[in-house]
Parts: sequence; C-alpha cells; structure tokens
Amino acid sequence: RINSERLWDSLMEMAKIGPGIAGGNNRQTLTDADSEGRHLFARWCEAAGMMMGVDTMGNMFATRAGTDPDALPVYMGSHLDTQPTGGKYDGVLGVLAGLEVIRSMNDLGIRTRRPVVVTNWTNEEGARFAPAMLASGVFAGIHDQEYAYARRDPEGKVFGEELQRIGWVGDEQVGARKMHAMLELHIEQGPILEAQGCDIGVVTHGQGLWWLEITLTGKDAHTGSTPMAMRVNAGLGAARITERVHQIAMAHQPEAVGAVGQLFHFPNSRNVIPGKAVFTVDIRSPDQAKLDAMRAEVERAAHAVAAELGLTCEIEAVGHFDPVSFDPGLVMTVRQAAERLRYSHMDIVSGAGHDACWINRVAPTVMIMCPCVGGLSHNEAEEISPEWAAAGTDVLLHAVLEVAEV
Amino acid sequence: RINSERLWDSLMEMAKIGPGIAGGNNRQTLTDADSEGRHLFARWCEAAGMMMGVDTMGNMFATRAGTDPDALPVYMGSHLDTQPTGGKYDGVLGVLAGLEVIRSMNDLGIRTRRPVVVTNWTNEEGARFAPAMLASGVFAGIHDQEYAYARRDPEGKVFGEELQRIGWVGDEQVGARKMHAMLELHIEQGPILEAQGCDIGVVTHGQGLWWLEITLTGKDAHTGSTPMAMRVNAGLGAARITERVHQIAMAHQPEAVGAVGQLFHFPNSRNVIPGKAVFTVDIRSPDQAKLDAMRAEVERAAHAVAAELGLTCEIEAVGHFDPVSFDPGLVMTVRQAAERLRYSHMDIVSGAGHDACWINRVAPTVMIMCPCVGGLSHNEAEEISPEWAAAGTDVLLHAVLEVAEV
Ligand SMILES: NC(=O)NCCC(=O)O
Ligand SMILES: NC(=O)NCCC(=O)O
Repeated sequence: RINSERLWDSLMEMAKIGPGIAGGNNRQTLTDADSEGRHLFARWCEAAGMMMGVDTMGNMFATRAGTDPDALPVYMGSHLDTQPTGGKYDGVLGVLAGLEVIRSMNDLGIRTRRPVVVTNWTNEEGARFAPAMLASGVFAGIHDQEYAYARRDPEGKVFGEELQRIGWVGDEQVGARKMHAMLELHIEQGPILEAQGCDIGVVTHGQGLWWLEITLTGKDAHTGSTPMAMRVNAGLGAARITERVHQIAMAHQPEAVGAVGQLFHFPNSRNVIPGKAVFTVDIRSPDQAKLDAMRAEVERAAHAVAAELGLTCEIEAVGHFDPVSFDPGLVMTVRQAAERLRYSHMDIVSGAGHDACWINRVAPTVMIMCPCVGGLSHNEAEEISPEWAAAGTDVLLHAVLEVAEV
Repeated sequence: RINSERLWDSLMEMAKIGPGIAGGNNRQTLTDADSEGRHLFARWCEAAGMMMGVDTMGNMFATRAGTDPDALPVYMGSHLDTQPTGGKYDGVLGVLAGLEVIRSMNDLGIRTRRPVVVTNWTNEEGARFAPAMLASGVFAGIHDQEYAYARRDPEGKVFGEELQRIGWVGDEQVGARKMHAMLELHIEQGPILEAQGCDIGVVTHGQGLWWLEITLTGKDAHTGSTPMAMRVNAGLGAARITERVHQIAMAHQPEAVGAVGQLFHFPNSRNVIPGKAVFTVDIRSPDQAKLDAMRAEVERAAHAVAAELGLTCEIEAVGHFDPVSFDPGLVMTVRQAAERLRYSHMDIVSGAGHDACWINRVAPTVMIMCPCVGGLSHNEAEEISPEWAAAGTDVLLHAVLEVAEV
C-alpha cells in the first residue's frame, strides 16, 4: 500500500501555489503559478531519482528506469493546471498519485521490467485556451502543434508565447515517445461513486463532447431612446439560445448534458443594447448518435433564434472529442486490483474529458476514479477524503506493478 | 447665426481624444483620455475669455461675465465622457455648442445682463460607474458626494480615487452655484426627428428609468460530470430573466422599453456551470405608473425564475429617475427660437436620461434636440450632419440670448 500521509502532504503543498479566493486554486495553464507548480513537481521527481524530459508543448515526463532498457514504458499522470476557480484535486491527484506510486516503489525496493513514467500534461482544463486536453491532443496527433501554439486566451495572449514566457518549452518532439500503456487516476467530478458508497470507479467509457462558440452580431444602440421594434439585441439572442441548449439537454438526459458556461456581451454597458454576444455551448453524451443529434439541434436552434431577431450567427467548433472506450484488458487489470485490495468498486463512465481520452488513440489506456464530496468539481469547494485518495492510489500502484511487470 | 464650420472643427478635434475602434470614441469618465478632453475644453474656454471653476465632483463651469454682477447666470452644457464604444456627438455636441454660442457672442460683440456658463458634467454616461448623470445628480442634491465617491467600476476602481488620479478634483462645493436657467442641446439618440424630417426637437418631457442590478447565486460545477438534475445554473437564470424583461417591455410598448445591457458570468469558463451571474436590467417609460408596474413585474419575474432553478436572487437599484417635465416657459422660448429661425420643429420626449433631468429639480431647465442618422447612438457609428448641429446650436444661441437678456 502507498503512504497515504505523504500523498496528502504533497497535495496540500501543491495547493499552496496559485491559491484561489475560496479555499481552492487558480493555477491556470501557462501562468506564473503554473510554472511554479511545475518546478515543485520537478524537484520532487528528482528527489525520487527520476529523470525529467519536457517536450515542445511543455508536457513533463519523469522516468523511473526499468530493468529492461528496450521495454516500452508504462505511463501514469494527469495535469497540474486548474480552472480559474478550481479545486485542489482535479488533475493534481493523478499527477501526485503517480509520484507517490514511484516513492512507494522506492520505499519497498520494487523494480519493474518496464520503465515507469509520471506525466504532467499541459493545458488540460481548456479554461484559458480552448480546447481542453490540448497538449495530450497534440501528443496523440489530434491537433498539430501550430494550431496549439496559435490558441488565444480571452485577453488575446497567445499559447506559444505564454509557454515560452514561463520557460517550459522543452526540446523533445511531441508524440515521439511510444507507450506500452497509460493509466490515469482522477476524481470522479460527479456524484455517483459517493452516492453508491463505492471507493473505486473502474472507468470503461468516456462521454464525447462538442464546444460550439457562437458569435451573434446585432447593433449597439441606446437602451432608452431606441424603440423596441428597432432593436437588434445580441444579448437577447444569447439568452434564448442558452435556454434552448438547456431544453435540448433535458430532452436527451440522462445520457446527455448541456450548458453555456462562458458568455461575453459587447460592449457590456448598462445602457447599450448588446451589439455582439460571444458564448460557448458545452454538450456531451456517451452516445455518439445522441451527441451528433444534439449538435445539429443546437445549431438549428441558434440559427432560428438569430433569424427571429435579425442577428447574424457564426458557429465555430472550438472543442470536440468522440465518446471513448478504454482498453478492455487494462479495465480488467484495474478491476482485479480493486478486488485484490478489497476496495468496493463499480464500472463507471467518465462525464468529463481527460488526457487519457486522447492518449487512448495511440496506446492502451485506462482510468481509475475516486469519489468527491457531493460530486462537486470545477468549484473551489471541491473536496475528497485522504482515504479516497489513498484507495485510488493503491489501485493505481497495483495496476501499474502488474502492467510494468515486477 | 453661429459659425457652423468652427463648431464642426471643434467636434472633430475633440473626437481625436480617446478614439474608439470603429470611428467613434472610448473616452470613458475619469480615464486619462477624459482628463485630456477636459484640458482641451479648458484651453478653448480660456481662449474665449472665460473663467473656469471646477467643483469637488469634477464638474467644469466656464463663465462669460454679464453686465449685471448680481444677476444669476444662465447655464448651457452637457458632458464630454462617452460610452466604451460611443459616438462623437452624444454629450459632446451640447458642451461644444455651448462654447460655440460664447464664441459667436464674442464675434458679434453681444453682451448679456446675466453671466452665461458652459458646463461639462462628470460621468453622465454611467457606463464605467453607475448610476448615469452621477455628478449632476450630486449637484441637484439627489445623491450625496460620499455615495458618488464610493462608486466602483467593474474592475473595482473607486470613483473618488480615479477623480483624484486624473487631477480634476476642484475646490468648489458641489451644488453651491445657483442657476437662473439651464439649457442642454443633445442629439436625439432615437429615430423620430429624422423620420419626421424635423431639424429641431423641443423637449417637453423625459422618460423615467430604473436600473436593477440582479445577482443570481447558484453553484459552480462541472459541465460534463454534473447530472442535469443537480445543476444550480445562474447563467440559465440570467438568460430566463433577460427574456422576461424583453417580454415585459414588449407588453408595455410603445410607451416603454427594457433590456439587459450588461451581464457577467462567473467564473465564465467554458466547462463550468456558472455559479454566479450579475447583470443590469434597464427599464424606462415616460409614464410613472407604467414604470412602477414594470419594475414590480421584473422583480417578481426574477424571484420566480430564481425559485424555479434553486438560485438565490438579490436585486439592487443602481440607477433611478422619475419621468421629467421641463420648464414650460423655457420650452416656449425654445419653440419660438426655432420658429424665428425658420427651422422645422416638433415637441418630443427624451428617451435617454440627461444632466438636464436632474438640474430640472433645482432650476428651470429645458432641452433642445437635433436628429441623428438612423436614430443610432451608444454606437461608434453614431452620426449627425453639420447642418443639424448648426441648427441646434443656432436655436441654443437664440434661446440663451433671450433668457440671459441681451
Ligand atoms: N477533467 C476535466 O475537468 N477536464 C476538463 C475538460 C472537460 O471539460 O471535460
Ligand atoms: N444621453 C445618454 O445617453 N445618457 C446616458 C444615460 C442614459 O442611459 O439615458
């Protein structure tokens, strides 16, 4: 079993970097705080006897050598970046659990045939730069690096320049590494495991997603002196489409969700009819047919609302992944590890996207989930218990030892 | 008649300060650009032989002496501040027309018994700091100065500190001046005069207004892994209330208007259900009973939507004025000036709020309006013709000469 106290201490230590305003974290990707978090992780890896490699997307790979120099390595990891008002565990647990697995192997003097690597993937959240899972997506060949480097945050800052600025452009070519397998531990970010009283979620599938950025253009005008009939109100259009997205998701639930998270009015002044509104629709389903149907419904609704109000409507897909099936062999390995350790477990579908979803395209991949209080995530009040963290990390250790061949 | 070319040149010169992004202006109150605009206006006043006074709200008063040192002065003026994406004439025309009246009187060697004062009122727009017409409101005793000084912009900057920073805290006590009358020339900001082919609007009344800032609080949560039934979506609440405001205004039109101009989602991240939304409802009517009824309907609708979605709802009135009736004697004076000058004219109700609406509480007041293209204002594309500007300024000159007693 892993050292639960050491794992928890490391989680709390990392959480001091980029503190939020309500007990959580704001350590968004490619900020100074992100850089500081990376340095701390790098120091810990070095102290644990690992060798650090960094690729041109800033992805970090800390390697513990195996006994067979020719064997493909086994990867663990997740991400250290957070939402602007994020929790202390989303992503971070997966990285620091990987580190704890290595520390425990060191304590116990365990050697594996295959090298074992702990990874921190850049910009998983997609909060600052859409899409989410950007750097694992480049690694898996989904996006090319030029596309990633050109992403802009809401202030107009450019991904490539920000990565350079914080000093984390490495020299490894992205995606050049070959993997025997990758395992990602993550908090569920939903309510199911806690409600079922289960310690471990064995993740068999992941939901697919579309992020549709919609730009409505009308006409800035005075809120007082412009007659109702002359208004071309982009904010009203955004409101109507937000309601329609909700209705579409409600019609397809429980195997679907949908919402508008981000919305900007322009010029966003109290006495100006918004001449422009830009917002992002997030729709998801584990069922490909439903996901495609929802996308079509949202686009039809957006164009219909725009036509009603005399707005122009542009829709750009700024994020997408199809529903995912994880590797059946690795799923079995995780389930058996949970059984062996006598943790209660159940099969589960990931509601969120994860780096493992992209890596699954280039290597056998699986995820392990642990519960979080009230299913709450992307919220500074996100919480887990040390016992839950330890159980997930124990299962990760046992699964990795099997896959990396003790 | 006034010098139309000189007036137009001054308008174009002022428009160089705080240029917008689409041909208009962004010279929001208490910015560096606002300060620069004030300095230019002060230089022009000095060159025209006037004495400048500034009060503790930054209101500027340039005086041309009268022949009777004991007579109460006649005031003209409006505001030099603009919306973030504002036009070149909204407010600016009223100030620079006042200056042109003085310049014309100088050219023609006209003396008046009463002093004549040209005023620039601070923060008329209310775009940066709610409410609108803040400094004329303090002058008229509607707000106290402490309230005004404590107003915050969306970045949290404080009115009193920003006024200090740009160097425009004067030494005069606000509201200490007594006025014989005030006349404000302004563009209509609506479509009526142009549609009717009228040069001059004789403003008899002004609409009343409520600005209601609504804060909805729900729960930040993950857009992917949070089941639809567990969401407490403040952005959805804001969308529903935006639609209800529109419906309420449509039900009361044409003697009413309503819209949501400003809206913020928090944390405003694509994959976070908005846990908080803050937005401002702007409702107006020239009819007091309608205005009160609409306010009650909006508040009821907001609380009902919040209850539906499990949100908490706070409503704060951040701006208000009752419908206004301008001074009948001055209204007659303006109408007669237009007749004498053979400009086509009609009586009109102001759709927007103006400094004259507050000053009307402490002195006889009237407004003169000139058309603007397509009724468009609070838009960088706001446009008027030099002929319209000249006609309005001619009427202002003639009305002022009468009231100030040649
Ligand atoms: N796990 C997680 O929150 N990832 C961010 C991408 C997503 O929105 O699913
Ligand atoms: N004239 C003008 O646009 N004033 C701003 C206050 C308002 O919104 O009516």
